[in-house]
Amino acid sequence: MEGSMVEKLYEGKAKILYPTEDEEILLTYFKDDATAFNAQKRGQIRGKGEINCAISAALFEWLESLGIPTHYIDRPERDRMRVKAVKILPIEVVVRNIAAGSLCKQTGLPEGKILPYPLVEFYLKNDALGDPLLTRDRLAILELATPQQLEQIEAMALKINQHLREFFERCGITLVDFKLEFGLDSGGQLLLADEISPDTCRLWDKAETDPKARVMDKDRFRRDLGEVESAYQRVQQRVLEQIAQLRNQ
Amino acid sequence: MEGSMVEKLYEGKAKILYPTEDEEILLTYFKDDATAFNAQKRGQIRGKGEINCAISAALFEWLESLGIPTHYIDRPERDRMRVKAVKILPIEVVVRNIAAGSLCKQTGLPEGKILPYPLVEFYLKNDALGDPLLTRDRLAILELATPQQLEQIEAMALKINQHLREFFERCGITLVDFKLEFGLDSGGQLLLADEISPDTCRLWDKAETDPKARVMDKDRFRRDLGEVESAYQRVQQRVLEQIAQLRNQ
Repeated sequence: MEGSMVEKLYEGKAKILYPTEDEEILLTYFKDDATAFNAQKRGQIRGKGEINCAISAALFEWLESLGIPTHYIDRPERDRMRVKAVKILPIEVVVRNIAAGSLCKQTGLPEGKILPYPLVEFYLKNDALGDPLLTRDRLAILELATPQQLEQIEAMALKINQHLREFFERCGITLVDFKLEFGLDSGGQLLLADEISPDTCRLWDKAETDPKARVMDKDRFRRDLGEVESAYQRVQQRVLEQIAQLRNQ
Repeated sequence: MEGSMVEKLYEGKAKILYPTEDEEILLTYFKDDATAFNAQKRGQIRGKGEINCAISAALFEWLESLGIPTHYIDRPERDRMRVKAVKILPIEVVVRNIAAGSLCKQTGLPEGKILPYPLVEFYLKNDALGDPLLTRDRLAILELATPQQLEQIEAMALKINQHLREFFERCGITLVDFKLEFGLDSGGQLLLADEISPDTCRLWDKAETDPKARVMDKDRFRRDLGEVESAYQRVQQRVLEQIAQLRNQ
């Protein structure tokens, strides 16, 4: 696809969107490019495109089977996914089970503190503004989504968290937090979009207690912890094994 | 008081607190020192201590007369105020009527946009962390106040906003936004504390339409707009005139 005559529709930091002959369908190409700290840090994670595409495809398919509407259609090649064309809402939805990342930096909460309940947080998807945290009031005033859509997003995010937590638990992985994006299809239906991968989730290996050794996600890249590729590979392996087991049940 | 033998209890960026013989009473000395951008910018505004002490005293007294409990007792000297000793809650409460300052920087809302309803926002009072914005969930998880206290603070902040807006309107001044702090007295009662002054309010002269000329508050210092002292003096004059008029009614 790269280098072909098809023009990109959109290029993000980790993915490229291409149109298809059907205007209701897009092709997502997953890149090996990795960025962090609002793209101030840039690099590559070898094999990441294929890994994240495979993990996301498996999780989207599984979530669909549990009644969560997603943009996923199929995965025609290892590093590309066909998805329903949606209008992405300019909101990053973060669900947190354990304090980590910006929550700790901003509030002083210690990393690893188990939160009393899952936190659904909204951030403005705007690199120029540094993806700022939004309160419910700011969300309402910015009119980025209707109150009904926001309620639906919050309910979906909590349901997805419940499913994913249980799923990763079975993989021997603690789901610390993750980022979701949602979009509206041509009929106005809210669909889970973007990806679910070690780029967008904080995943801690339950077998490791060392705060560095346990990290299986993009924090290995962000924090220069090394062994980034192998961590992503291990997540992929465990996710796909677990999916296979669930299929055989 | 400065240079005397009485030891400071606490020194903030704009005020110093001294103990008195009565442990339920503190003496607040208002400094001419001005800081902005989390104390990265420092300077002095000549006469500010006396002006802010006079404005705050007048507004606290007036708010008390309207049923808002405050820490204010009296003003024994021009630049110092006797206040009830309270335990300050580590929360900055900001009420916004019009978009300005960090709200615009963070969300991209245009300065001057009239908000559809007054916004009560909470910030963590923590210079090291840069006084970050708190969502309701983060407030709850940090346990900085009980849910009952937060509800009471929000209700008080909205009531204070209603009173102050009307008051400043009569002064020919638009109350854009302001910051409040609250404290608990020895009996656990919630009192409005800190100060109410051009240091803590955004005040726009209604007679001026030019976005720079209308500024009557610390933004003149923050944004190097000049004529800082005279702006503070004009606020003082109008506030004290209005208070005198209200007394004569």
